[in-house]
Amino acid sequence: MLSDAIACIGFSWIASPACTELETVMMDWLAKALGLPDHFLFSSGGRGGGVIQGTASEASLMVFLGARNDAIAKLQAAEPQGEPCELLARLVAYTSEEAHSSVERAAKLAFVRIRSLKTDEKHSLRGDALKQAIAEDRAKGLVPILCIATLGTTSSCAFDNVRELGQICNREGLWCHVDAAYAGSALLCPELRNFADGIELADSFNFNPHKWMLVTFDCSALFLRDASKIVEIFSADPIYLKHEFTGQPDYRHWQIPLGRRFRSLKIWFVMRCFGISGLQAYIRKHVSLAKEFEALILANGRFEVVEEVTLGLVCFRLKGANEATEALYRTLREDQRIHLVASKFHSSGVYFLRFVVCSSQCESKDIRFAHSVIMEAANKLAK
Amino acid sequence: MLSDAIACIGFSWIASPACTELETVMMDWLAKALGLPDHFLFSSGGRGGGVIQGTASEASLMVFLGARNDAIAKLQAAEPQGEPCELLARLVAYTSEEAHSSVERAAKLAFVRIRSLKTDEKHSLRGDALKQAIAEDRAKGLVPILCIATLGTTSSCAFDNVRELGQICNREGLWCHVDAAYAGSALLCPELRNFADGIELADSFNFNPHKWMLVTFDCSALFLRDASKIVEIFSADPIYLKHEFTGQPDYRHWQIPLGRRFRSLKIWFVMRCFGISGLQAYIRKHVSLAKEFEALILANGRFEVVEEVTLGLVCFRLKGANEATEALYRTLREDQRIHLVASKFHSSGVYFLRFVVCSSQCESKDIRFAHSVIMEAANKLAK
Repeated sequence: MLSDAIACIGFSWIASPACTELETVMMDWLAKALGLPDHFLFSSGGRGGGVIQGTASEASLMVFLGARNDAIAKLQAAEPQGEPCELLARLVAYTSEEAHSSVERAAKLAFVRIRSLKTDEKHSLRGDALKQAIAEDRAKGLVPILCIATLGTTSSCAFDNVRELGQICNREGLWCHVDAAYAGSALLCPELRNFADGIELADSFNFNPHKWMLVTFDCSALFLRDASKIVEIFSADPIYLKHEFTGQPDYRHWQIPLGRRFRSLKIWFVMRCFGISGLQAYIRKHVSLAKEFEALILANGRFEVVEEVTLGLVCFRLKGANEATEALYRTLREDQRIHLVASKFHSSGVYFLRFVVCSSQCESKDIRFAHSVIMEAANKLAK
Repeated sequence: MLSDAIACIGFSWIASPACTELETVMMDWLAKALGLPDHFLFSSGGRGGGVIQGTASEASLMVFLGARNDAIAKLQAAEPQGEPCELLARLVAYTSEEAHSSVERAAKLAFVRIRSLKTDEKHSLRGDALKQAIAEDRAKGLVPILCIATLGTTSSCAFDNVRELGQICNREGLWCHVDAAYAGSALLCPELRNFADGIELADSFNFNPHKWMLVTFDCSALFLRDASKIVEIFSADPIYLKHEFTGQPDYRHWQIPLGRRFRSLKIWFVMRCFGISGLQAYIRKHVSLAKEFEALILANGRFEVVEEVTLGLVCFRLKGANEATEALYRTLREDQRIHLVASKFHSSGVYFLRFVVCSSQCESKDIRFAHSVIMEAANKLAK
């Protein structure tokens, strides 16, 4: 509430030094709390650092713009007579077929071609698929510039293989971005960090504290290894925005809007109120409630769980053809006592329901209640 | 404060019907209060309507993306074999050399060529300049798609000639966007609407209630004649975002981010608390305080006012070479009792200081105080 009510508009350091400086400190706090590599910290003294975006959609767009700008600058250095749009036509980015729709949307807005690559049987994008796509595209004369890996897909909370993808990106000169909008908060717990293996190879990383870290919407944290690649795009510097203080970032160059709110206050309050241990306990409780739901669902032989339960999401369905689960979904929606969202795997077309633990009020009794409603609906359908 | 604390994320109608529906009603209230043409109202039953963006920068970018998409679709219909990037290379947009830097920035992000056209002696972009640019560019094989007119430039609060520009845009098939980020709020007062003559010719209109209408940041109102041109760009519709209610807009298709806050509450509270008459009184008081400052400045023969004072901004300088005013600016900044921002006209290079009435607490005594500080500084320099 304070972050909106304080009518400060910190587009540059001079417009509100506290707004900029608290944000740089909070971004470093977050990066350390999640165990992110040093190159994402301002305090590492390099070109890296974090910035609050509104949503992961904006973060993805920033990454597309940065990678596009960087690639075109490099191509222009090699071919000074190249028309920008001709160079743009050669660029290609990659993501998984299970990536969030906002990635494809960001590619469209940035006018960069994107390929959605096939995943393995665990819905994970692997190095071989990326390697093959890069080879195919280079053979066609295209210039691969970016790979967006997802940690925790929206559909089923699957995890791309960041180590394999990062190694290929580093070797082949692609920007490696990791979208961990939902799952990122789980990195607060050291025992849950396995899924982010290889994160030190990433050029940028994004997660939404507003999703699973008790910060109110909007607050999406984007970390960059080399922020200058983003800043350069936004180099318009009219006289009425110039100032003589250059030691701190001017965040207006790190985002689409010009003005910005004092959102780092939200992170400060949450981290001071709960502490790292309080936030860890929150995440752990949700994961354990999800496992409880999984066990309840699997106790009934008619159901199956279609993705490994790593965090707070359980993807389940009635065994057999999609129609049965589709009917179950309709019944649950009409019933209105619990809210679920359905999804489908791109590769197999398998339809499933998504049960997610995401309320700060959620307790074991709620899990058991939701399970009983689902069983009731399934039994009704079985008759 | 409520708008941020209500943790609703209304990306689609179904995610929060109240969030979407209050916004459509508030946008219509605003359009009516400002005397905007009917085609910007949802209640007109056409394809038009308004949406809250974060900032004018985002609104400009939306307009660029919409105009780009529309133009490319038309070119592709005529030349089905045309490569998208080749078609993109032909597009060109126009604005005034006095337009805000965010317009040039939006063009860069959208990868659309932009020309900053020369203004007349009142720093107003006129029809002849646009007509000539269009003719030149068509002769080169380019495709003019968009003209962004400014009502109330950041530098000096100059006004482009919307009637002349709109007529040419309508005739030549260009999207005519009007950026009235600051000045738009003044349209609440019927006696101040002269500067927006021709607004019925515009395809889109943007102003920031957070600038001069007592709404806290962020709240930028964008009105579109045909929203379908924007919505089509964002057509990614994954299964987990699908729903069966289509009577109301899904605002996620009207903006860069996916999630959105309940910002229309801010407009509702302001309009219910102050009423149209209260807001009109607020604008009128600021305009009259600006005129008071102008009269005080002009009472001293060493000063001149370099732009007609229409709203709350007074652009003044010491007569003669820029150096004297630059020295005055430095003295005032060191003095620190009042805050001014300097600017310069692109055409003439004339440097000036900008005195703006923008605080809800501002009274005549503050104007007289600011004037006395400026005179003191000028006298000190004269010695």
